[in-house]
Amino acid sequence: MSENTYTFFEGGVTSPAGFYAAGIAAGIKKEGLDMALLYSKVPCALAGTFTTNLVKAAPVKWDMRILKEQGKAQAVVINSGIANAATGAEGMARCELTAQAASKALGIDKDFVLTASTGVIGAQLPMDKICEGTAALAEALKDDRESAVLAASAIMTTDTIRKEAAVSFGCGGKTVTIGGMSKGSGMIHPNMCTMLAFITTDAAISQPLLQKALSECVGESFNMITVDGDTSTNDTCLVMASGLAGNAPIESEGEDYEAFLGALKALTIRLAKKMAGDGEGATALFEVIVESAADKESAAKMARSVAGSNLVKTAIAGHDANWGRILCAMGYSGAFFEEEKVDLYFESASGKIQITKGGVSTGYSEEEATKILSDPEVTARIVLGMGEASATAWGCDLTHEYISINADYRS
Amino acid sequence: MSENTYTFFEGGVTSPAGFYAAGIAAGIKKEGLDMALLYSKVPCALAGTFTTNLVKAAPVKWDMRILKEQGKAQAVVINSGIANAATGAEGMARCELTAQAASKALGIDKDFVLTASTGVIGAQLPMDKICEGTAALAEALKDDRESAVLAASAIMTTDTIRKEAAVSFGCGGKTVTIGGMSKGSGMIHPNMCTMLAFITTDAAISQPLLQKALSECVGESFNMITVDGDTSTNDTCLVMASGLAGNAPIESEGEDYEAFLGALKALTIRLAKKMAGDGEGATALFEVIVESAADKESAAKMARSVAGSNLVKTAIAGHDANWGRILCAMGYSGAFFEEEKVDLYFESASGKIQITKGGVSTGYSEEEATKILSDPEVTARIVLGMGEASATAWGCDLTHEYISINADYRS
Repeated sequence: MSENTYTFFEGGVTSPAGFYAAGIAAGIKKEGLDMALLYSKVPCALAGTFTTNLVKAAPVKWDMRILKEQGKAQAVVINSGIANAATGAEGMARCELTAQAASKALGIDKDFVLTASTGVIGAQLPMDKICEGTAALAEALKDDRESAVLAASAIMTTDTIRKEAAVSFGCGGKTVTIGGMSKGSGMIHPNMCTMLAFITTDAAISQPLLQKALSECVGESFNMITVDGDTSTNDTCLVMASGLAGNAPIESEGEDYEAFLGALKALTIRLAKKMAGDGEGATALFEVIVESAADKESAAKMARSVAGSNLVKTAIAGHDANWGRILCAMGYSGAFFEEEKVDLYFESASGKIQITKGGVSTGYSEEEATKILSDPEVTARIVLGMGEASATAWGCDLTHEYISINADYRS
Repeated sequence: MSENTYTFFEGGVTSPAGFYAAGIAAGIKKEGLDMALLYSKVPCALAGTFTTNLVKAAPVKWDMRILKEQGKAQAVVINSGIANAATGAEGMARCELTAQAASKALGIDKDFVLTASTGVIGAQLPMDKICEGTAALAEALKDDRESAVLAASAIMTTDTIRKEAAVSFGCGGKTVTIGGMSKGSGMIHPNMCTMLAFITTDAAISQPLLQKALSECVGESFNMITVDGDTSTNDTCLVMASGLAGNAPIESEGEDYEAFLGALKALTIRLAKKMAGDGEGATALFEVIVESAADKESAAKMARSVAGSNLVKTAIAGHDANWGRILCAMGYSGAFFEEEKVDLYFESASGKIQITKGGVSTGYSEEEATKILSDPEVTARIVLGMGEASATAWGCDLTHEYISINADYRS
């Protein structure tokens, strides 16, 4: 189901019924907002997906345990500035202390409090600031638009734009809303991409179906974006469903489940594209569509390989139709195809141009190609002529600014 | 056997007995030398390794066929500027015409002529220039030092330094020499790295043992370097053995084979390090040593993952001891280890510093670490405490200059 069949509106995590948010400056970063709290007035069904990195940050381990043991939660405390990764037993203890602080401030069980962190790896959380911040956040909680904006702002690190989305749809005679916020700009690569995403919904849906829907959506959204090939230690995507929309609980697959799944997919793709387009130093969102592949897995592998190639990305930065690099990245992707069948197109708001036909150059106009590649959103469409499967990946161009941001990130 | 047990000397492909070389400007590139010829006065045993990219350039296919069908060759024609990749049947025909031109000029069978190309993908070779160039090269062939230098210069693209090496060693009472030249600066990633390497030797050695030795050496040298994660369509490493040293032919594994293997390994590692250190835009050679891993494969996988991480490489460029990124890249490498056992050191000519002990920070001096990371050759030594295996990979830092070089490579 495409994104266009759902109506998005200006909103975020407080848009669904029953959710409160807050964002403050707790002094963890040198300046700016750096702590957020998300709270539901009722316990929620919980679903989550987490980094596949062997090195998992303390909050990732904490959340995985809560998801596994109870599948329910009511709040999330988030800090930016310090990732609480590679921090050993002490890091785990500080994560638990953070949940305890929120538990006390909110009057809920500490095992109903999720945590998330992003920032420098290897440093310990400053617990005085975290505990004071958590108390202040609990005081500041509101269910209005402004609070969602503050929360979405507080989870940013090198992000240059705030990433929020909200969508409503009819479900069993009721209106269900899904809202979300995410952060991610560098250390971004599938499984999971380096990112934090927090999604709220007032849908009544069983925990197993919520998890099933999330897992499917992540595979076609967050796991299809790449900025730099580095899979983070902290990647976390959480969904909390309050059930307050009053819809007949979704407890089996069917029309209502499909409606929910479609809306969640549209929302996650929207957040994912915002992250890819805001890749560190990026000046363009780079979309790679692979069509008529032999199977879905090959299509996805190839799309990600092309979107993730440093050489393709620098060519996009230079508005240079250096299509040989695309063929090269397809060739080392591990996906099978026949070189002599490849049709390649570049597309943007400025037009569409066929670059190769049957694996060799069409003799296209370089000038026209450069014009198309100079737009802020650029698509490479690869038609393999092998089968019926397709996949889309999103990345960004690789620029001087990426280097500047990352050469001395900690200073 | 370590590199230090062999004596290197100033030399290259013409150092072993019986080899001639030439390099000229044929007008394929806008300026500079762009064609080279390598010739042996006798037919040679041939060994080769080639790109694993599904998209293989025409010359790669040509050489693979010759290696498979006859295992012998007498000459190599090389051009830089155009890769002759993604050029279809026409590209294959032009490759054959190139070999034919050399065959005619040298008076040898065209199936004794290997070809290699590097440069822009997707463009066809200008055959007038190639044929005239090949004839001129045949005229210019000499077995002196200067001709080797010209050949090694003519195969460069974005390389900033010429890459040659030569080594001699005793073998069955005779002196055997191995010489080599290579190019590679961008589109560099294991299996094979993006590179061309041509190695000559006067050793008398059977073709199967020559291939066996080469394959082992490539696994510990060229396949352990990475610049940008892009595996090229043209990677080729060829070895030709003339037998003119007069040593008792090496026809079984034993002392002589071990001596040859050791020398070849030392030479390939030396060429590989030159390529990594000359990575596009690089200001530092970055060496990653993984020690006490559970097995060799894990060690190699992890070393390459760390050496290839954009985020680690930008940190090295910024002389920033952002060790969390190293742990992160270890974590997504696919190799198993225990985070709480990891000891990490940075080393250079300026000193050695322990960064983590048991997976957490030692509280090292950032100032001292930055000093060490400011040297032109920097080593990260990762001690896993899991087993006996080790591996070394080489890369470089990722700088603004990499972007500048690649944003408009074709213009």
